[in-house]
Amino acid sequence: MRYRSLMVGACIGVLAAVAAGSVYADADLDKAAANPNNWPKPRLNDPATAYSPLKQITTSNVSKLQVAWTFSTGVLRGHEGAPLVIGNTMYVHTPFPNIVYALDLEHDEKIIWKYEPKQDPAVIPIMCCDTVNRGLSYGDGKVFLHQADTTVVALDANTGKVVWSVKDGDTAKGETGTSAPFVYKDKVLVGTSGGEFGVQCHVTAYDIKDGKQVWRGYSEGPDNQILVDDKTTALGKPIGKDSSLKTWQGDQWKIGGGCTWGWMAYDPQLNLVYYGSGNPSTWNPTQRPGDNKWSMTIWARNLDDGVAKWVYQMTPHDEWDYDGVNEMILTDQQIGGKERKLLTHFDRNGLGYTLDRVTGELLVAQKYDPAVNWTTGVDMDKNSPNYGRPTVVAEYSTEHGGPDHNSTNICPAALGTKDEQPAAYSPETQLFYVPTNHVCMDYEPFKVSYVAGQPYVGATLSMYPPKGETNMGNFIAWDGKTGKIVWSDPEQFSVWSGALATAGGVVFYGTLEGYLKAVDAKSGKELYRFKTPSGIIGNVMTYGHGGKQYIAVLSGVGGWAGIGLAAGLTDPHAGLGAVGGYAALSNYTALGGQLTVFTLP
Amino acid sequence: MRYRSLMVGACIGVLAAVAAGSVYADADLDKAAANPNNWPKPRLNDPATAYSPLKQITTSNVSKLQVAWTFSTGVLRGHEGAPLVIGNTMYVHTPFPNIVYALDLEHDEKIIWKYEPKQDPAVIPIMCCDTVNRGLSYGDGKVFLHQADTTVVALDANTGKVVWSVKDGDTAKGETGTSAPFVYKDKVLVGTSGGEFGVQCHVTAYDIKDGKQVWRGYSEGPDNQILVDDKTTALGKPIGKDSSLKTWQGDQWKIGGGCTWGWMAYDPQLNLVYYGSGNPSTWNPTQRPGDNKWSMTIWARNLDDGVAKWVYQMTPHDEWDYDGVNEMILTDQQIGGKERKLLTHFDRNGLGYTLDRVTGELLVAQKYDPAVNWTTGVDMDKNSPNYGRPTVVAEYSTEHGGPDHNSTNICPAALGTKDEQPAAYSPETQLFYVPTNHVCMDYEPFKVSYVAGQPYVGATLSMYPPKGETNMGNFIAWDGKTGKIVWSDPEQFSVWSGALATAGGVVFYGTLEGYLKAVDAKSGKELYRFKTPSGIIGNVMTYGHGGKQYIAVLSGVGGWAGIGLAAGLTDPHAGLGAVGGYAALSNYTALGGQLTVFTLP
Repeated sequence: MRYRSLMVGACIGVLAAVAAGSVYADADLDKAAANPNNWPKPRLNDPATAYSPLKQITTSNVSKLQVAWTFSTGVLRGHEGAPLVIGNTMYVHTPFPNIVYALDLEHDEKIIWKYEPKQDPAVIPIMCCDTVNRGLSYGDGKVFLHQADTTVVALDANTGKVVWSVKDGDTAKGETGTSAPFVYKDKVLVGTSGGEFGVQCHVTAYDIKDGKQVWRGYSEGPDNQILVDDKTTALGKPIGKDSSLKTWQGDQWKIGGGCTWGWMAYDPQLNLVYYGSGNPSTWNPTQRPGDNKWSMTIWARNLDDGVAKWVYQMTPHDEWDYDGVNEMILTDQQIGGKERKLLTHFDRNGLGYTLDRVTGELLVAQKYDPAVNWTTGVDMDKNSPNYGRPTVVAEYSTEHGGPDHNSTNICPAALGTKDEQPAAYSPETQLFYVPTNHVCMDYEPFKVSYVAGQPYVGATLSMYPPKGETNMGNFIAWDGKTGKIVWSDPEQFSVWSGALATAGGVVFYGTLEGYLKAVDAKSGKELYRFKTPSGIIGNVMTYGHGGKQYIAVLSGVGGWAGIGLAAGLTDPHAGLGAVGGYAALSNYTALGGQLTVFTLP
Repeated sequence: MRYRSLMVGACIGVLAAVAAGSVYADADLDKAAANPNNWPKPRLNDPATAYSPLKQITTSNVSKLQVAWTFSTGVLRGHEGAPLVIGNTMYVHTPFPNIVYALDLEHDEKIIWKYEPKQDPAVIPIMCCDTVNRGLSYGDGKVFLHQADTTVVALDANTGKVVWSVKDGDTAKGETGTSAPFVYKDKVLVGTSGGEFGVQCHVTAYDIKDGKQVWRGYSEGPDNQILVDDKTTALGKPIGKDSSLKTWQGDQWKIGGGCTWGWMAYDPQLNLVYYGSGNPSTWNPTQRPGDNKWSMTIWARNLDDGVAKWVYQMTPHDEWDYDGVNEMILTDQQIGGKERKLLTHFDRNGLGYTLDRVTGELLVAQKYDPAVNWTTGVDMDKNSPNYGRPTVVAEYSTEHGGPDHNSTNICPAALGTKDEQPAAYSPETQLFYVPTNHVCMDYEPFKVSYVAGQPYVGATLSMYPPKGETNMGNFIAWDGKTGKIVWSDPEQFSVWSGALATAGGVVFYGTLEGYLKAVDAKSGKELYRFKTPSGIIGNVMTYGHGGKQYIAVLSGVGGWAGIGLAAGLTDPHAGLGAVGGYAALSNYTALGGQLTVFTLP
C-alpha cells in the first residue's frame, strides 16, 4: 500500500483539532482517518465538514480536470451518498438492492468483492422518496451497510463476508433503512426512515464488535424511551419531566414520526453525537395538536449511553414536512471575538442555524434563501415566551385555513430549502457551501387514518419555482457566524448533491441534469463542468492514490426531486408533489447508476 | 447547422467510389451520407466498412483523448450497436424496452425527444442471448427501429412521432427483433431472430414511405418463398429447382431456422444486398438430416425484388450453431493483379471468406484463429464434388459420436470465432480489423421436440478458452486477399465490440471489461485505453461536430458472452454454455447502459 501524502501544507482547522484530541477506541479507523488520502466516513470526518486537506487540484488547474475512470453500479434509480476510500480499496454502495462493491484502486479498479443482500422487494413501495441509500461507514476492519429492509450488516472489509447482522426495524410498520450508519469509537449508530408511515423513530447504537444493541433513543415518547434526564436542556433550560408526552394528544406519540434518516456528526472531546429528527406524523397538522416534541429537533446525545445533553426544536408543530434531519456541521469559529464550539445546520424550513454545540445556545437563525416566506424569522429574545420559535405567517400556515384548505405559494416546498444533500465547510474561507432548493408549493391537508404499514401522509402537494422565477435551485456560500449569503450561483434545478470543499480552494457539487461542477470557494465562479451519465444526487468526494488527487461522484437521478423519473410516475401530484415540479428533468437526463472519477492529466 | 469538414485529405477508397455512383432514391439520406461528420448507417456506409474519413484524431494525438460527455440510457443489460449522428442530432437506442433518444449535440446534449414503445415483457425469455438491439437506421427524414416484439417503426427524426409501424413477425412462434433495420434506396430491410425456437426466418423489404411490404425472402423453403430463380447460382452454377426443399427431411424446413439477425451491406452499382443466414433448427444435427439449405449461407439479393443472384452455404448441415449472419464487408481490392469487387465475411465457423461479390466466386477461405479445429479447411478444388465445402474433422463433429455423445474441445465454441461484433476495413492499410472470440466448447446433443414458441435447441454446452491458454479473445488485423492474420492483440475476454477504422490511422474497439482501446492500424500497438462504466459490446463510432472529431461507444455488458451477468444466471450450462465460460467477467464489471463520448482537448 503506497502512502504518499498529497497534503503539502499543514492540516489546519477543525480536522486537526479533532484528530489531536481523538478518543477513538478503534485503532483501525483512527489510522484510516489520519491519512488524508482516505475518505473513511460518509462526510469524510467526524465534524462532517466534507473538507479535504488534499490540494493537488487547485483553482488554477481544475479546468484541466479529466475523467480518469468510470464504474457502473448495475443498479438504476437514485444514487445518494458517496463511496468510501481506505488505502487501495474503494467501497461503492447502491440504492436497493443495496449492493456493495470493493474496488481495487491498485489494479485497474477490479471488483475485489461484491455483497448483494437478498431483500424482499416489497420494501420498495414503502420507501417514500425513492429507493436511495446514503452510503457506508468503516471501522474495526469492517464496512457497515444499512439496508432498505433495516438490516444493519457488518462486512469484513477484505472479503465482504458478513461478520454480524442485526435487524434495526420492522418493515411491516413502514420502517425502512436509507441512511448511512455512523461509526464513532466502538459504536455503530443507525437512524430510521418512515415518517410518512407513522413510525416512532429512533437512533440506535450497536456494538461495533458484535452488533449488540447498546442504547436506543426515540424521538418522542416517555423519558426513558427518548433518553433524557433532569440535566437535559433546551435553550439553556431543563426540559423537565415528560417533555415529549405533554406535547402530544393521547398516544399519538406512538405513531409520531420524528424520523432520523439524516447525517450525524460527533465531537470526541464532548463525546456528543449530533443529529436531527424529522416530521411529526401525520403531515396533516390539524390531526396532531401540540408541539409534537421532539420531532423537528436537533439532538445532542452522549455517545456512551445515548442520554441527551440538549435538544432544540426548530419547527414546533410542523405544518409543512420540514424534517430536521439535515446534516450538523461542527466548526470552531469566533463569534463576537469569542472562540466558540459551533454547530451549523441548514434546515428544510429554510433557516440556517448556528448553535453553541456545548450548551445548545442558539446564536444565529437566518433564512438561507430569500424566498422563504412561511416565517418572518425566529424570536431571538431570550426573555420572550416564544424564544427560539419561528414566527409563522398565517397565510402560509397550512392549518390556518382549516381542514381541506389549499394553501398556496408556500416557500419552501415540503422538500425544504435543502433536503438531505449535505453542505461542506472550509476552515480557510470559514464559509459553508450549501446545495439548495428554490421551490415553493401548494399544500392541501386531508384527514387520514393510521393503518400500520400504510402511508400516513394526509396532504396533497404541488411544487414549482418561486413566482416569476425559473431556477429551482442555488448553490450558495454561507457565513454561519452572521447568517448571511456570501455568494449564490443559480441552478435550473434543485442542487440535490452533497458539496465537497478542498484545500485547493475549489468547491465541488453535482446537478440534477448530471453536471459535476467546480467553483472557486471564494467567489463561486464556475471553473469546470462535466456532464456525467445521469443526474447527480450523490455527494462529491475526493481521495488520493498513487500520488494523484481524485474527485469522484455517483450519478443516478432520483431521490425525492427525481422520483418521477426514478419510479416512472407521471401524475404531477405523485411523489408527494415532486413529480410535477421536476417534470422538465426528463429533457436533460435518464436513469443511471455510475461512478465517475476525475483527475488532472 | 454548422458544417465544418474534418476530412482534410481526399475521401479515398470504397466510400468515395460508392458515393460517386450512388443510386439513392432518398435525397435526405444521400445528403446525410455525403457529409463525413455524420454516422447515418449502422456500419457508417453501404459497404459496411465502418471506415471514417475523419482524421483529426491520429496515431500521434490519440493518447491525449479525453471523455467529452456521457449519457446514461436508463436501461441495463447488453447494449449492442452504435448511435447514429445526423447533423446536430444523435440518435441513441437501447436494449429492451428499445427506447430511442434524440440528443441535441448543439445544446448540451439535451434530450430533444424520447420514444419508448410499450412492449409485452413476455418477449424477454424468448430472446435467446440477451435483450439486445443492434441499432437504428435513418432515411427519408425518419429513424427506423426494429423492436424486440418484431414491430418495425418509422419515427419522425425531428419529433420522434410514429410515422408508420408494421409487425414483422410473431412472438408466439419465438420470432423476435434484435437486428438493426437497413435502409437502401426506398426500402427498409429487416431480418429475424429466433433460430433457437424453430422459426422459418426471412428478410423483408418495406417501403420507406409507408411501411408496406415489398418482398420477403425466406432462408429455406420452396423457391417462391426463398425468392430464387433459374439464374440464381451457387459457386458459379445454377442452384436448380427446389434447391432448399431437397436438403430437408419432409417439412422440417418450416421450422428450419436460418435466421437473419446480422448485418447487411449493399452495392448500389450491382443493386445487390448482402447478408447471412443462421443456424438450422434444431441445433441437434441428428434430428435434421441433409445440408439444410439455405441456412448458414451468404445471400446476394436484388434490392428491388429480393430475388437471389447468388448464394454460398458456408457450413452445410451445421453441427455447432455456427450462424452465418456476421457482417459482409464490401471492398474493391486487387487479387493477383486484378481489380476485384470483393465481399469479405468472418464467419462464426472460424473461417474468413473472401468472395467475388458480383458472381459469388469463392476466392479465399482461411482460419482467422489458429485454434479453429472442427475443419481442416475448405475444399478449393473447383473440380471436386466437395468444392466450397469445409472438411469436417470427425473428432469434432457433434453428430459423429452418435446421440447423447459429449464432443469435447471443439474450437470455436458455438458463439464462433466471431459473433455479431462487426469488423472494420481501412482502404489505406487494406486490412480488416476483427474482434474475435478465442473460445472452445464441449457439446452434447439431445433429442428435442418442436413446440411453437418453446426453445428448440437440443444441445448442452460448456465453453472455455483453448486448452493451455487463458485469453478468450484477440483483436486481429486480417488480409482478406491472402487470408492471413497480420497482427493479433490478445484480450482476456472475447472482443464483443464492433471495430472502427479511421483515416487518422487509428482503429478502435471495446472490451468486455469495459475498456475503449485505440490501436495503431498498421501495427496493432495500443495507443490509448479508458475504462468505461460497464463492459462494452457496442460498436465504436465516430462523428464530427463543431469542428471536432468525436469517438463514441455504448457500454452495457451483456449479449451472449455476458448473458450470465445480464440475466443474473449462475448455472454454468445456462446461456447456451456462456455463463460458465465467462464467469470471471463479474470480477471486472457490472451491468450498465451508458454512452461515453471522447474527443481531443
